[in-house]
Amino acid sequence: MKKNAFYAQSGGVTAVINASACGVIETARAHRDRIGKVYAGRNGIIGALTEDLIDTSKETRSAIAALRHTPSGAFGSCRYKLKSIEESRAQYERLIDVFRAHDIGYFFYNGGGDSADTCLKVSQISRTMGYPIQAIHVPKTVDNDLPVTDNCPGFGSVAKYIAVSTMEASFDVASMAKTSTKVFVIEVMGRHAGWIAAAGALASTRENPLPILILFPEVVFDEDRFLAEVRKKVEKFGYVSIVVSEGLRNADGAFLAEAGTRDAFGHSQLGGVAPVIANLVKDSLGYKYHWAVADYLQRAARHVASRTDVDQAYAVGKAAVDMALAGKNAVMPAITRTSNSPYRWKITEAKLARVANVEKKMPKKFISRDGFGITPSCRAYLEPLIRGEDYPPYRGGLPRYVTLKNTPVAKKLDAAFEI
Amino acid sequence: MKKNAFYAQSGGVTAVINASACGVIETARAHRDRIGKVYAGRNGIIGALTEDLIDTSKETRSAIAALRHTPSGAFGSCRYKLKSIEESRAQYERLIDVFRAHDIGYFFYNGGGDSADTCLKVSQISRTMGYPIQAIHVPKTVDNDLPVTDNCPGFGSVAKYIAVSTMEASFDVASMAKTSTKVFVIEVMGRHAGWIAAAGALASTRENPLPILILFPEVVFDEDRFLAEVRKKVEKFGYVSIVVSEGLRNADGAFLAEAGTRDAFGHSQLGGVAPVIANLVKDSLGYKYHWAVADYLQRAARHVASRTDVDQAYAVGKAAVDMALAGKNAVMPAITRTSNSPYRWKITEAKLARVANVEKKMPKKFISRDGFGITPSCRAYLEPLIRGEDYPPYRGGLPRYVTLKNTPVAKKLDAAFEI
Repeated sequence: MKKNAFYAQSGGVTAVINASACGVIETARAHRDRIGKVYAGRNGIIGALTEDLIDTSKETRSAIAALRHTPSGAFGSCRYKLKSIEESRAQYERLIDVFRAHDIGYFFYNGGGDSADTCLKVSQISRTMGYPIQAIHVPKTVDNDLPVTDNCPGFGSVAKYIAVSTMEASFDVASMAKTSTKVFVIEVMGRHAGWIAAAGALASTRENPLPILILFPEVVFDEDRFLAEVRKKVEKFGYVSIVVSEGLRNADGAFLAEAGTRDAFGHSQLGGVAPVIANLVKDSLGYKYHWAVADYLQRAARHVASRTDVDQAYAVGKAAVDMALAGKNAVMPAITRTSNSPYRWKITEAKLARVANVEKKMPKKFISRDGFGITPSCRAYLEPLIRGEDYPPYRGGLPRYVTLKNTPVAKKLDAAFEI
Repeated sequence: MKKNAFYAQSGGVTAVINASACGVIETARAHRDRIGKVYAGRNGIIGALTEDLIDTSKETRSAIAALRHTPSGAFGSCRYKLKSIEESRAQYERLIDVFRAHDIGYFFYNGGGDSADTCLKVSQISRTMGYPIQAIHVPKTVDNDLPVTDNCPGFGSVAKYIAVSTMEASFDVASMAKTSTKVFVIEVMGRHAGWIAAAGALASTRENPLPILILFPEVVFDEDRFLAEVRKKVEKFGYVSIVVSEGLRNADGAFLAEAGTRDAFGHSQLGGVAPVIANLVKDSLGYKYHWAVADYLQRAARHVASRTDVDQAYAVGKAAVDMALAGKNAVMPAITRTSNSPYRWKITEAKLARVANVEKKMPKKFISRDGFGITPSCRAYLEPLIRGEDYPPYRGGLPRYVTLKNTPVAKKLDAAFEI
């Protein structure tokens, strides 16, 4: 019995979430006997609720293939979480109306922890509301905080970007340190977990050791110990690079980003922990500084994506369709590491109930005793995830990222639905 | 008569200044009959003044070749400007002492406008103080503000980085705009000239137009017109990317970066015009924003260097040695564009007196009438400069940048020299 599929992207996008879309769509196209069309939701689950569907069958084979090297969410993403069936039955009834109108039997949702929760709720429609649907979650998050899976697609590429950028900036500061900048601060994402900050430490290798100091959100900021460490590194190496998580907190639990800067009108919402740290160093130690805030650049940087990450992002998309064809519901393809050296991984099946709303923190054993670096076991975990390059094609000096036609599917329902 | 050569790097470093070093050293090595050793100054001219020289002949051929793909200044740079011979005769006497002690007859100085001035002053030693030396300036600056030369090595790569990053972040914001971020602000270098900011506009192409708004240092910031343009773009496209130069000023001539942010103690030196612009948009229009400050990441980003830039950086290094061998003094290899389409360029000879202390601004005809974008002639100028990719080799997911041995040359002078 041939059914159509729904696919949508949710939460913060990444350099490789479209590679997962590519995996889903190409695999579905390879099974036209069992899967009809893949309808993408415009802006995540909102597209399903508002019957704003995109007909991916209107896209050429090469356009879909180009998703593999295109960052961001090609169909639009959303920050929107479904309430429970008990709390908001009307939403689920609407989803069923839309699914039924478009003969949708497969639901693929591509996102992080919150999205896994949405996907889990949709998976329960079959049992509780009698509409037969198979809901499969496709993992994605630069925060690397999903449980069960060894790592999350999207993280490896942001980790590579931060490692490469930290290395490059460190070389720069080293050149300038004699008469100018001695301290470089880079602010990275990861409000609750220090996975991305940890990646900055990869820039220092045995072959080429660099003075890098990490400020994790997991480690309470201790100003005196921090300043002592900065001074020590500058005295030894002439300079230091500091990788600071946006989620760094002081002993009171307050974000340093919010504690610090105010604009001319006294507003405190500017954010930016990098300037706070840089200014503290300048005030206390007198070192000249530079600071950077990578923000979206880090998660959109498909130009320096990790090949491991791209391969895994594609693989979880493909596996999601395979699981659907095998009759599964309420599951997520997870990445299981079978060997560190040589690095080997395979796709396994995770129960969605074990994934949704669970946040995986950095294990304590991954943070060095002084709190400013990573341990060898952390390095062994991280290093394979940034391995390999996977450059997009270029024309005229710029990557040839694809913008899809995103042809709408004709609406079949009379009623509109307010979000 | 065989003489040794002195080579040094000066000012802010770039992704390709080492490619010029590679061009100088490899070309000198190819003329061992006429050029003895290449001694590099540790930290620019300071290395010459303090007799802190590096013997590049101790480096392997492959280490020197690797300079071509290594960002930053391999011998250390400096921010230090020589005074005139009249003002500071002792400095020049010291230089002559060092040059004579190490039999140095060629002086290659790799830098921007200030460094060209230093090089010009050294070139005058022959005439005014009787020590025979040939001084050749090797152009470098991300600011692209040297006169005579069509463009400056270092600029093409930072332009490519900003164009690629602006494109990637724009794709990201476009995905998020429905329920979240609608405005992305990226702050770029270029305090006096908007060349780097202009490069952000390259991200929008005829094939794939993106809503990008440039804030040039050449255009006085007009809050009302700016906000109207932001609103217009968001209403039309759903989002906007803003590329703002660190040198943006208001009608009073004050830098917006300094006018805006203060830390908790009331200090105003944090800098950062991106958060000021982002906050203004939020306060006035209510759009959710993200902002990034690329800082050193942009000029160190060898991983996404322009091949045109790398080729030109090498070529000016090579040409500097060729000019020295041809008996020249007080000159600089300049890049002359002979054709836009197809793009063709050649190396020509510029008199250093015409280069030193002259700053090339963006021509008015390169900025669009509304002041928020670039003209077709600007695009025609910029586009060839970011063309082509030139990836470094990687190992374990990271670029294999070289760190030289930097073996010191034994000192021959008894006296130390205070900087």
